[in-house]
Amino acid sequence: MNFASDNSSAAAPEVLAAVAAANTGYAMPYGNDPIMDQVRARLRAVFEAPEAAVYLVATGTAANALSCAVLTEPWGAVFCHRNAHIEEDECGAPEFYTGGAKLVPVDGEHAKMAPGALRGVIAFTGRSGVHNVQRGMVSITNATENGTVYTPAEVAALCEVARGFGLPVHMDGARFANAVAATGASPADMTWRAGVDVLSFGGTKNGCMGVEAVIIFDPARAWEFELRRKRAGHLFSKHRYLSAQMLAYLEGGLWLRLAAQANAAAARLSAGIVAVPGAQLVHPTEANAVFAAFARAGHRRAQAGGAAYYLWPFDQSLDGPDDVQLAARMVCSWSTTAADVDAFLQLIRG
Amino acid sequence: MNFASDNSSAAAPEVLAAVAAANTGYAMPYGNDPIMDQVRARLRAVFEAPEAAVYLVATGTAANALSCAVLTEPWGAVFCHRNAHIEEDECGAPEFYTGGAKLVPVDGEHAKMAPGALRGVIAFTGRSGVHNVQRGMVSITNATENGTVYTPAEVAALCEVARGFGLPVHMDGARFANAVAATGASPADMTWRAGVDVLSFGGTKNGCMGVEAVIIFDPARAWEFELRRKRAGHLFSKHRYLSAQMLAYLEGGLWLRLAAQANAAAARLSAGIVAVPGAQLVHPTEANAVFAAFARAGHRRAQAGGAAYYLWPFDQSLDGPDDVQLAARMVCSWSTTAADVDAFLQLIRG
Amino acid sequence: MNFASDNSSAAAPEVLAAVAAANTGYAMPYGNDPIMDQVRARLRAVFEAPEAAVYLVATGTAANALSCAVLTEPWGAVFCHRNAHIEEDECGAPEFYTGGAKLVPVDGEHAKMAPGALRGVIAFTGRSGVHNVQRGMVSITNATENGTVYTPAEVAALCEVARGFGLPVHMDGARFANAVAATGASPADMTWRAGVDVLSFGGTKNGCMGVEAVIIFDPARAWEFELRRKRAGHLFSKHRYLSAQMLAYLEGGLWLRLAAQANAAAARLSAGIVAVPGAQLVHPTEANAVFAAFARAGHRRAQAGGAAYYLWPFDQSLDGPDDVQLAARMVCSWSTTAADVDAFLQLIRG
Amino acid sequence: MNFASDNSSAAAPEVLAAVAAANTGYAMPYGNDPIMDQVRARLRAVFEAPEAAVYLVATGTAANALSCAVLTEPWGAVFCHRNAHIEEDECGAPEFYTGGAKLVPVDGEHAKMAPGALRGVIAFTGRSGVHNVQRGMVSITNATENGTVYTPAEVAALCEVARGFGLPVHMDGARFANAVAATGASPADMTWRAGVDVLSFGGTKNGCMGVEAVIIFDPARAWEFELRRKRAGHLFSKHRYLSAQMLAYLEGGLWLRLAAQANAAAARLSAGIVAVPGAQLVHPTEANAVFAAFARAGHRRAQAGGAAYYLWPFDQSLDGPDDVQLAARMVCSWSTTAADVDAFLQLIRG
Repeated sequence: MNFASDNSSAAAPEVLAAVAAANTGYAMPYGNDPIMDQVRARLRAVFEAPEAAVYLVATGTAANALSCAVLTEPWGAVFCHRNAHIEEDECGAPEFYTGGAKLVPVDGEHAKMAPGALRGVIAFTGRSGVHNVQRGMVSITNATENGTVYTPAEVAALCEVARGFGLPVHMDGARFANAVAATGASPADMTWRAGVDVLSFGGTKNGCMGVEAVIIFDPARAWEFELRRKRAGHLFSKHRYLSAQMLAYLEGGLWLRLAAQANAAAARLSAGIVAVPGAQLVHPTEANAVFAAFARAGHRRAQAGGAAYYLWPFDQSLDGPDDVQLAARMVCSWSTTAADVDAFLQLIRG
Repeated sequence: MNFASDNSSAAAPEVLAAVAAANTGYAMPYGNDPIMDQVRARLRAVFEAPEAAVYLVATGTAANALSCAVLTEPWGAVFCHRNAHIEEDECGAPEFYTGGAKLVPVDGEHAKMAPGALRGVIAFTGRSGVHNVQRGMVSITNATENGTVYTPAEVAALCEVARGFGLPVHMDGARFANAVAATGASPADMTWRAGVDVLSFGGTKNGCMGVEAVIIFDPARAWEFELRRKRAGHLFSKHRYLSAQMLAYLEGGLWLRLAAQANAAAARLSAGIVAVPGAQLVHPTEANAVFAAFARAGHRRAQAGGAAYYLWPFDQSLDGPDDVQLAARMVCSWSTTAADVDAFLQLIRG
Repeated sequence: MNFASDNSSAAAPEVLAAVAAANTGYAMPYGNDPIMDQVRARLRAVFEAPEAAVYLVATGTAANALSCAVLTEPWGAVFCHRNAHIEEDECGAPEFYTGGAKLVPVDGEHAKMAPGALRGVIAFTGRSGVHNVQRGMVSITNATENGTVYTPAEVAALCEVARGFGLPVHMDGARFANAVAATGASPADMTWRAGVDVLSFGGTKNGCMGVEAVIIFDPARAWEFELRRKRAGHLFSKHRYLSAQMLAYLEGGLWLRLAAQANAAAARLSAGIVAVPGAQLVHPTEANAVFAAFARAGHRRAQAGGAAYYLWPFDQSLDGPDDVQLAARMVCSWSTTAADVDAFLQLIRG
Repeated sequence: MNFASDNSSAAAPEVLAAVAAANTGYAMPYGNDPIMDQVRARLRAVFEAPEAAVYLVATGTAANALSCAVLTEPWGAVFCHRNAHIEEDECGAPEFYTGGAKLVPVDGEHAKMAPGALRGVIAFTGRSGVHNVQRGMVSITNATENGTVYTPAEVAALCEVARGFGLPVHMDGARFANAVAATGASPADMTWRAGVDVLSFGGTKNGCMGVEAVIIFDPARAWEFELRRKRAGHLFSKHRYLSAQMLAYLEGGLWLRLAAQANAAAARLSAGIVAVPGAQLVHPTEANAVFAAFARAGHRRAQAGGAAYYLWPFDQSLDGPDDVQLAARMVCSWSTTAADVDAFLQLIRG
């Protein structure tokens, strides 16, 4: 019963097998391995984007921060939701990689930016010309940090706001697979057709060991990305091990199958929790994370029973009256089983 | 017959097996996995440094550039050999990570800094006070980019120069195992006992998939390193896969066994080449790389026969008189076999 | 009738005369001129801080951004009011100088941070350890961007919050003279006795041509400041012209006399405006700027009559019904005369 | 007898008078003052460059470092002479402003880059693609740090090398006036007609208080320059005082008249020194600085007599045999008189 994070899960067997299979003989380093050729072709096909540039890095923070660095100047504002990973959880990586750009938070329910709020914040930025940070770029997280999902139409609405100001758009897709699985949208509709310029396409949280693709739909930005990646120490010499993970992840739609498993587990968990008297959702459960409040007594039993997850926010206490509802975050992964979910539900029901 | 680079080789079976074994169940992310506890303990034991801080990253450039960033201010000079990897092959990663420090090249034969040259260059730097870049740090590469090795006494001599100016010392040990295997020195004698403050302890080139340890002998610098690593996107969420590689690499002295194999292959290759009439070494063969010149006709036969390696410098031509001696770099790895070497020698002998 | 900004005024005659007097013979460059020795002594006396390090630069942005850079690491959060100059009007200079620190806005009425709000925001920052930007420093603007003033007790209350988290405090005193003149506080009480570590002591807006002092009460940070200043191109070779301005500014309390003139003009203007039927203050008038709303017809008359000032916010329109109250910012300087004020009031009264 | 540096001299009376004249009434800040309109027009006329963008800053380091930042990416190499001010005397300002570019020194006699040396160094840089720092830009100093001067043809030869690699060219003209006065070349021939893209046009060392113009011949780069200048704190609010200095400097060819005075003084000094038995020039005297060696006894007499100048290099000693020739740098300025020179010569002759 580990719902601490999708990053506490292991890699899918298919991914590990591919890594093992790649471990033979000599291979050209630095992304010139033949498996990477297949990865490029496969991702272009999945995204219906034959010209897209495709690069691999090992962490989501690297994917996001490098993407921002190619999309904005150092004096640019990066517009993102107040709870975006790049704003809250990367120790200032976007600031470091961009050379000091300013993240400007946008409001919206359930970690989704509202188009009107985005428009207002962008319009407010840079009004005094050279004295202000300039409008730089927009970053959309899908699925969001609160387990919600933007539909392609919602992504398009945000991109339209960005385009109105001439701004490029990045999508933090650390959980892109969960968003696609949740909506049934095509990868292209969710990204470039809606107006996204660069996607961080996550693998790590969804069954890989550590690999993320950066897909740059306009290849004019590609060479700069390569230089920034190398200069940051994110170009792997034995690159085949990244390539192998990613190829296995794409093979036969594994990425969507794993995401669907995680989403289904979260749906089961969510449904089970709301059935508990007094419990309620904090955010809608649309992808693989459940944000819900239930009784402190339930939390005590769950944690005593070995369940791993976080009270959310952190600073709530397990000490106190039994029937107070405490909010928590429970993240499912590809490896979460129905048995895990049911055991957890049994604990919190008491 | 692949002598292009030690990074074109695969991972050792023991390393891959450890990764596979780690791929079970849930694990705490971000370096809090239990395997990492073992890595820490093991590296401290290997280095006889019970207080050392130990961190893992996936690339040598990350290890080096992050190490420089904790050792020098942005206005510092980084003194290193003119052919150091940080000076020539990292696309300015040290400049990026340090916030614009200045790499100041030092001369010396066979890619080894001469203590007198180092002293002279340091003394010359910063003489005009605030108008100059200040003296920052020294970085020593062992084994060097030219396949040579510093003994502990030679390292100590350089560190003594650094200490005379109050400067900290980094060692780029992407091929540290080869240097230790070549000299028989203890890891402690080669590093902190000689005066090294921070070591990039390489795994990738010597049988791992992608892992380097940064060993900080003075733990006062540790927290800054952690923040810089995270901020740079080099903190892995599924960290167990880095830990597992490193633990297997250390287990039973695998790291030294693999390095000894690579060094032995290079020695065999080197001896074979110098026995070819007209051929000669460009640099002494002390670790796992051979720098030698032999006849153009031999190069033609080797390359036609499928041998992979680089003419060094690159801009020599295979076209021209047969008996001109062309210099080349041939790197052996843990996986280079005697048969590979002998086949190559047969080709160049004609 | 120029109320556009205090930076549109000229320099005081005493300041210009001092510059002219300094223009004779040879002088040591880079701050080693003898006038600078007097400046140092004078500022230490004014601030009752015999150990303070004192440096001159030519712009307020340089003073602020360099100060931030010595007080926080690149991964630090700079806590300041949402309307602080460093947050809104410096095109990201603090981000540039600090190497990517994050400005975290704090709320509070009339551009003054509320201690509780500051405590809350600091407490919220950095809760997840290495994943977050860390708590870095606090910056207080006095007088504020809204023409209000912190008393020494109010500064001390904010510094106490900062100290509770171990954070250093910077004061943006571009209008420090106005704050001191308004409160009658001693410079020491307003700064280091209240807990301020570094002060940007403004001269430019208050009668100088272009000079600001940075006063570092803890001289341990001084050498770093010198290096950062030089590296940023803010160390003047013909430094005597900065020194001469600052010395004249301090001589005989000129700085306080000029500030008192500006404050008095603002008080007269403020009182005159609130006497206009329908008009009202947007912020209390405590220093040299008046933020007030009065009828659109009054604005039309004022602007037709040649008065220079800004509608605040900018995006209000002079077109529309006469009796709508539009807010504006009117800044007085040392050179604003009672006649200027009265002429302006006559225009807006119609 | 002050030959320490041209920056130890005062401002020319015309410059000071213009500053005083500008000190009346209100003026738009931040470069929108009417005097700046005249400066722009005048510099465009002087340079026969009607489209050029013109900006003012107060220090040469700011002019140079900002110029580099608009001409190269952070991963670019800046090719300049080994003794260039940007390489040796700016505490890493170019590295700071560019975000970590690498200064790559080029050799050449008397601080002048040799075209062949420049070509060789550029060709060597970036040969390994993404692994290397890329070719970024060339910076030429005229007049040089050794008091020599490039002719327009020599500038053009260097620019042609740069163009062959597609690189832009900056000229550090802290002593541009001295170079133009020395050669009689037109400003246009010395810069954009020869291939220079951006010029730091110095005023400070040649009779101003503190002002340098940056002239960007291709205005496409202008807006980026404005943002970088502001972000660096180099945009002056009371900008009129910079404008007034520069306008006076240009008025009636004052800049060339002052430079001619300085050059003539240096020529007189140089001729006088070489006439001393045993003395000789270290570098040819082509502008306003004399680099010459003469007997230690002469140095002792000069310094005892109150002459200010530097032994060059610094680390020579006045203690020792009388007749040893010690090298020194003696810089003349617009204010150096024939009497100063003759008094100095008398001292060294003994």
